[in-house]
Amino acid sequence: MPPQPQRRNFFRSSPPTQRPPARGQTSARPPAHYNNSGRGDNRTEQSHDDARPKTVQPNTLRIIPLGGLGEIGRNMTIIEWRDYERDDRDILLIDAGVRFPEENMPGVDLLIPNIKYLEDKADQISGMVFTHGHFDHIGALPYILEKIKNPIIYAAPLTRGLIIKRHEEFKHLPKLKIDEIKSGDIRKIGVFEVEFIHINHSIPDDMALLIKTPVGPIMMTSDFKFDHSPVIDKPAEIDRLKKIGDDGLVLLMTDSTGAEETGHSISESTIQTNLEALIKDAPGRVIVGMFASAVNRVQQIIAISEQYGRRVVVEGFSMKAVVEVSKALGYIKPKKGTLISASESHRYTDNQITIVGTGGQGEENAVLMRLATHRHKQLELKKGDTIIFSSSIIPGNERTIQNLKDNLLRHGVRVYNYKMLDIHAGGHGHQDDLEYMFKLVRPKFLMPIHGHLSMLYAVRDLGVRIGIPEKNIVVVENGFVVRVNKDSVSVDKKPVPSEIVMVDGLGVGDVGSVVLRDRQMLAEDGMFVVVTIIDSRSGKVRGSPDIISRGFIYLRDNKILLQEARKRIRQIVENSTAGEHPFNDILVKEEIKEKVGQFLYQQTHRRPMILPVLIEV
Amino acid sequence: MPPQPQRRNFFRSSPPTQRPPARGQTSARPPAHYNNSGRGDNRTEQSHDDARPKTVQPNTLRIIPLGGLGEIGRNMTIIEWRDYERDDRDILLIDAGVRFPEENMPGVDLLIPNIKYLEDKADQISGMVFTHGHFDHIGALPYILEKIKNPIIYAAPLTRGLIIKRHEEFKHLPKLKIDEIKSGDIRKIGVFEVEFIHINHSIPDDMALLIKTPVGPIMMTSDFKFDHSPVIDKPAEIDRLKKIGDDGLVLLMTDSTGAEETGHSISESTIQTNLEALIKDAPGRVIVGMFASAVNRVQQIIAISEQYGRRVVVEGFSMKAVVEVSKALGYIKPKKGTLISASESHRYTDNQITIVGTGGQGEENAVLMRLATHRHKQLELKKGDTIIFSSSIIPGNERTIQNLKDNLLRHGVRVYNYKMLDIHAGGHGHQDDLEYMFKLVRPKFLMPIHGHLSMLYAVRDLGVRIGIPEKNIVVVENGFVVRVNKDSVSVDKKPVPSEIVMVDGLGVGDVGSVVLRDRQMLAEDGMFVVVTIIDSRSGKVRGSPDIISRGFIYLRDNKILLQEARKRIRQIVENSTAGEHPFNDILVKEEIKEKVGQFLYQQTHRRPMILPVLIEV
Repeated sequence: MPPQPQRRNFFRSSPPTQRPPARGQTSARPPAHYNNSGRGDNRTEQSHDDARPKTVQPNTLRIIPLGGLGEIGRNMTIIEWRDYERDDRDILLIDAGVRFPEENMPGVDLLIPNIKYLEDKADQISGMVFTHGHFDHIGALPYILEKIKNPIIYAAPLTRGLIIKRHEEFKHLPKLKIDEIKSGDIRKIGVFEVEFIHINHSIPDDMALLIKTPVGPIMMTSDFKFDHSPVIDKPAEIDRLKKIGDDGLVLLMTDSTGAEETGHSISESTIQTNLEALIKDAPGRVIVGMFASAVNRVQQIIAISEQYGRRVVVEGFSMKAVVEVSKALGYIKPKKGTLISASESHRYTDNQITIVGTGGQGEENAVLMRLATHRHKQLELKKGDTIIFSSSIIPGNERTIQNLKDNLLRHGVRVYNYKMLDIHAGGHGHQDDLEYMFKLVRPKFLMPIHGHLSMLYAVRDLGVRIGIPEKNIVVVENGFVVRVNKDSVSVDKKPVPSEIVMVDGLGVGDVGSVVLRDRQMLAEDGMFVVVTIIDSRSGKVRGSPDIISRGFIYLRDNKILLQEARKRIRQIVENSTAGEHPFNDILVKEEIKEKVGQFLYQQTHRRPMILPVLIEV
Repeated sequence: MPPQPQRRNFFRSSPPTQRPPARGQTSARPPAHYNNSGRGDNRTEQSHDDARPKTVQPNTLRIIPLGGLGEIGRNMTIIEWRDYERDDRDILLIDAGVRFPEENMPGVDLLIPNIKYLEDKADQISGMVFTHGHFDHIGALPYILEKIKNPIIYAAPLTRGLIIKRHEEFKHLPKLKIDEIKSGDIRKIGVFEVEFIHINHSIPDDMALLIKTPVGPIMMTSDFKFDHSPVIDKPAEIDRLKKIGDDGLVLLMTDSTGAEETGHSISESTIQTNLEALIKDAPGRVIVGMFASAVNRVQQIIAISEQYGRRVVVEGFSMKAVVEVSKALGYIKPKKGTLISASESHRYTDNQITIVGTGGQGEENAVLMRLATHRHKQLELKKGDTIIFSSSIIPGNERTIQNLKDNLLRHGVRVYNYKMLDIHAGGHGHQDDLEYMFKLVRPKFLMPIHGHLSMLYAVRDLGVRIGIPEKNIVVVENGFVVRVNKDSVSVDKKPVPSEIVMVDGLGVGDVGSVVLRDRQMLAEDGMFVVVTIIDSRSGKVRGSPDIISRGFIYLRDNKILLQEARKRIRQIVENSTAGEHPFNDILVKEEIKEKVGQFLYQQTHRRPMILPVLIEV
């Protein structure tokens, strides 16, 4: 793409104010990008609550990413047409995904997008589109469904099937209203017209979205890669993409996940060749560990297994669920008799068996870990088994996966992973794929989404390299409001709420920083509860203070320490209560916390959480 | 190396019995390797306590790895000559390193080798050799020094300097007795004769060990790589290594850390070129994040900085300590005036400043993280700064490092890491380096040490590939006793204790599975202490039960839940005490735990640790 002619500086936002604090481990500062590009000469001053300004403003298209920027997962985007004349708005929602918690969030099950901004606007939601069926795009729906008042959903068949399958786990929720779409379909959703365009990913039915808006067409790539020889899928609709470019695209929101990887992403047909070679030569059983959601890969392994006379055992709860849905919809097409149960597998010789299961990330209760640790009911590993990790490593899981690998090797099996052989391709385009996309659709403005900040910046660098002016590339983080016009884009000063929402058991959003900090403290050095009974008349301690401690030291091995602690507690309490009548409950507790804490630290260099209980009798 | 002639099957051990349980996350099973090779025809039956057998046995050389096998770090090896005639033994210790705790070990500071085996044998320790000054080889010394009765230590100058520097932090310990050695030196240590041989690693003064034993020479490579054009170091002594091969080497214990990486490890001179290009072209300050222990790299950066007119600021506690020792010994040679303090840096223009600091692993309080989060007292990041991660990622730290990188990018800086450019080389030889070593020293027997099990197996595969018979390669895990003879090697059935020892504050080995499990439980869902006062005569509950809860829910937002819980506690207690006099304290507590637990789970799907306290008045 040739460098575009210079346009007037549209990037008018001034540096935004401080971000809301505490979104996981990330800093609260806005990306420095603003500081560099913003001129402040014509800044957009509306606050996110978007109170009606004194003079009527021009209507605007606003894009608000609620999740997925500066992180992997939790993808959700708002496209909003704000009509100041009718004082109304049309809201189109795209995806609602989950993300797995960080290490410093013990006990937390899932992270979901913050939809506070939508809470008083549910009636203005025209519809909700899901690009594909991966959990980082559909998984949050059950948690937000009632708050957004169960809007009409647009989804392709497999995406719809997976959304419904998950929905079954939430019995209390209302029935979903899903309009099933296919590639090429166009739907009028409020003021928007959405066209669904087939594109490649690691799951079928992935749809890029072309959204016609009052300011012109904008596009979202969805998670994507280009695969000119995909397996069990068609290549992306290159002609349609090129036509979009010819017609003039105002803004492209692009998947950025692969933007730090050079070259093209590997084609599934390369993976096919390598998997086939391994399965063909395997002396015994082949056990493939992978993501349950990688529907194409599952079908691929079934087809190869059939070719080499192997039956296939599908193992693991989520894998079985995905296979069930995909099979019902024809995305997985085993021959009659190919799929057998684990217990049936014993009727065949080892080289007639392939096992497809979850657990490539070292998950504690998934198939591979259960096999490695002799916790699988029907299956035992043995020498001669070939184990294939047909998945990448999610960052942070390296240690766990290494442990899993070592545990597997102890059984005398052979283990193959993607570092040794191309037996996994990610679902995200690398730099050359992204460049190809940019050159096809030739957007005026580029907005990287889906990925860590370093990936969003990598898209910026890539865009600049192929000739998009840096000022036409909008790098923002979750919650920032991007206003789009035909020939200008700006970022509102004030973001909408975007703090992470945590799901823990039945609680959605009720675990916050205080509870988490307590959990971290308890995890570090445990706790030390001191129960003291005080005679309310004399202020004397009755009997010996009770100590309940967990996670700190072995009480049994530290009797002298405990005895000494009890003696000190008695002294502290009686010194505090002496002469004071009635004594100050709060002060005595503070005194115990501080002095017992000091004593224990000095003895052990550990800082358990000290919780004093005073009982007056 | 041509395939060696087949020898008689020396690998005579039968499958060893179950390993001692719980070594981190690894399974308790012995490597399957044994099951495949052992014939059981002539098994060695001695138990590890090595009680004197009924008939006098032939004297034997025993190698016992106490740490570093099936893991990275915690390296320690025992070489023992067991003389049955004089009923004595000579013990040579090699290294005593630390390892960082796993995610499921909250609050734990360090992991060290288990030296239980040595505890009644301290008088038989002839000496202790340290191969090099990295913490995974020297860090455990202060924790075991008294138990092994402060033996004579053999170490090269820098290793000695770093051991002494660390020793200063442990005031209560006796003075060390260190015999300083240099490459080429030979020391008689008990029955052993140890020759120190210069080899390349990421720190100077790394020594491979040639140990002459009564059964012939054995060798330990130490952590090593081959670098034919090292920076600030000489290449390894290839001729000496070749001569060792010519003279006949019985057994080689080899570093396995790089055994899964193909090709040669990158030469430091490649790194030099790339670092130089980055530093030369950097428009402003250059900030290099790296391991404090990478002494060569530090000197390299100092030299490049001097070349381009930059002053160097050394930041971070451990970095300063290492630079101090290395400078005093002449391994780091800054020109006069090159090293300046952070506050002095403001006197220079940005392109005259290089900052060398710790924190490449995303450590919370290291220099890079403090800079990223505005917590550095003298320095602030700014646009124009170039940040170089000149270190690899320790597995498990990926997420944290990504967060750090994003936080840095928010300042508008440029960030470079080893994935983008060869600006870091590991200290461990890849497959081609290992192969070269094996071909030089041509061992009869090969014993992979230092690395995860998958790496040890990779050394086995490599050995087989270059013609060492599989039965001559001994893959064992920590604690297994390898008996070495001139032409046979066997593995004892019963291992010596090798469970991980945890250091937490002042406690060494006092945190065990119970304390850890409690910490994990507390971290998951917090705790819920219930204090109930019971009238001992009536069995009735006095007042309202006290509830102290942390890490479970926000108490303030859940008043109804707490009220309901209190009501139930009262019922549970009074039902249990009714008619029973005196009531059974233990039963009542169990009843509270179970029923309150059920109630809370049903309400929240969380399982806090429930701790009932009953007070009779």
